[in-house]
Amino acid sequence: MEPTLNPESGFLRLRFDFSYDGANFSGWARQPDQRTVQGEMESAISGLTRNKVELVVAGRTDAGVHAASQVAHCDLPIRDKYGNEWSTQDLVYRLNRMLTEEIRIKSISIAPSYFHARFSALRRTYIYKIADGQRQIDPLKRFDIVSWYRHLDLSRLNDASSRLLGEHDFATFCKPGGSGTTIRRLEKFSWERIGDGTLIATVAADAFCYSMVRNLVGAVVCVGEGRFEPEWITALLQNKTRVSESMVFPARGLTLVGVDYPSDSELQARASVTIRRRDEE
Amino acid sequence: MEPTLNPESGFLRLRFDFSYDGANFSGWARQPDQRTVQGEMESAISGLTRNKVELVVAGRTDAGVHAASQVAHCDLPIRDKYGNEWSTQDLVYRLNRMLTEEIRIKSISIAPSYFHARFSALRRTYIYKIADGQRQIDPLKRFDIVSWYRHLDLSRLNDASSRLLGEHDFATFCKPGGSGTTIRRLEKFSWERIGDGTLIATVAADAFCYSMVRNLVGAVVCVGEGRFEPEWITALLQNKTRVSESMVFPARGLTLVGVDYPSDSELQARASVTIRRRDEE
Repeated sequence: MEPTLNPESGFLRLRFDFSYDGANFSGWARQPDQRTVQGEMESAISGLTRNKVELVVAGRTDAGVHAASQVAHCDLPIRDKYGNEWSTQDLVYRLNRMLTEEIRIKSISIAPSYFHARFSALRRTYIYKIADGQRQIDPLKRFDIVSWYRHLDLSRLNDASSRLLGEHDFATFCKPGGSGTTIRRLEKFSWERIGDGTLIATVAADAFCYSMVRNLVGAVVCVGEGRFEPEWITALLQNKTRVSESMVFPARGLTLVGVDYPSDSELQARASVTIRRRDEE
Repeated sequence: MEPTLNPESGFLRLRFDFSYDGANFSGWARQPDQRTVQGEMESAISGLTRNKVELVVAGRTDAGVHAASQVAHCDLPIRDKYGNEWSTQDLVYRLNRMLTEEIRIKSISIAPSYFHARFSALRRTYIYKIADGQRQIDPLKRFDIVSWYRHLDLSRLNDASSRLLGEHDFATFCKPGGSGTTIRRLEKFSWERIGDGTLIATVAADAFCYSMVRNLVGAVVCVGEGRFEPEWITALLQNKTRVSESMVFPARGLTLVGVDYPSDSELQARASVTIRRRDEE
């Protein structure tokens, strides 16, 4: 299915910036009889605006994955049913009243017609939080952290992670069954320990294939805990054999924290490049 | 009921430092057919140690109130059923495995026999978090924050709060029906805005009567939003008439963040002073 790049005539394109707690959703993508972020948001927007809308999202998150800075777009007629222009501020306020506090729309803006939440994106950034060793998770901060019983060595984590940077075929780290290429450009993959000792990985790429971040984290943790040497990661990447399912880390620790877009003047060019590859997500 | 100050002969006193997410508990205090923090902890400790224990807590929190640093004690026989000394580290580990992640025991230590979690305490400190105006609450940080639709002026909040400092009869701010005195020494009550704009009140006193912090917050917010002048707070305190129930702020925003005790050598003296007043909590 070739996506519609521009809004239809008489429609304008709205950009939504929002966040959500993914714990009680079956992921982003609308599915029959499942509670999904897309389903909740589309139903609120359609109900409020009296227009059946479809949202196109920058990063389709899996069940249980969170978003601190997600981006989506949809198209609406230029005027509402009373012939008035939309007040984006009013839409934000009223949609947030309709949604549960698990989803918060931070802003809505009228985007250039060439803006496409998915295909215009240059880069997605995720973080992954781990409380390792005997480190306890504060009950009020537990919702986006996973625990790992062994101690993880920060420099080994960073050594292993840095070996994955650059453009590679990440088939090893992609759940099979996805369509399109598994060649991605990993731009950042580094770890830090914050004040209370929690480990945070920051992972950025042009795009990710299905469950790729959680696979990357799982593999690198094997090195961090001393089970394998960093060279093992390099071999994994080269061999292109799928890593064990048991290494995939839980959705709960994963949060989408940013989506980068080019300047408005470069939006159209970027989307065209992406669509030619027909495989981004 | 006069509390037992010291452990019985052959018993030792254990101090528990722990935290909890109060959202899904009917408060601290054990009640029939209710899920309470005390009930969950006592049942885990009794089950693991094969001794029926009763916990005495520093700050009995209400339904929905959280604790980042709560303290309690209970007494156990000096040796376990195999005749071995208790390993407090092992107890922490095993109890945390039995409890849900809503409660985390941070440490257990063998306390001086004169230590009494409730009566030895010099001071309790709470925080209260508010997202005011149109400020949104991050879905992943929503569990201990309440929203208030009007903008609150920080200097007015602090002006009003500072008028309550010192030793007063806080009957105005205490839910009726509690036993004992309503004379308390309010040592700190101040507000700040943190990075994302969230307002945080820090409130410390020798002890608090029932729902006192949430009453104080509610009254001071009336000044912060401009509904009343700071002088109104002074008059409230002097008149000793109970403030409207509608001003009480929700439990969800409240977290016990600290309990202070005197040095070990002063523990016994402190408990005796407190018990003479027979009214602390």
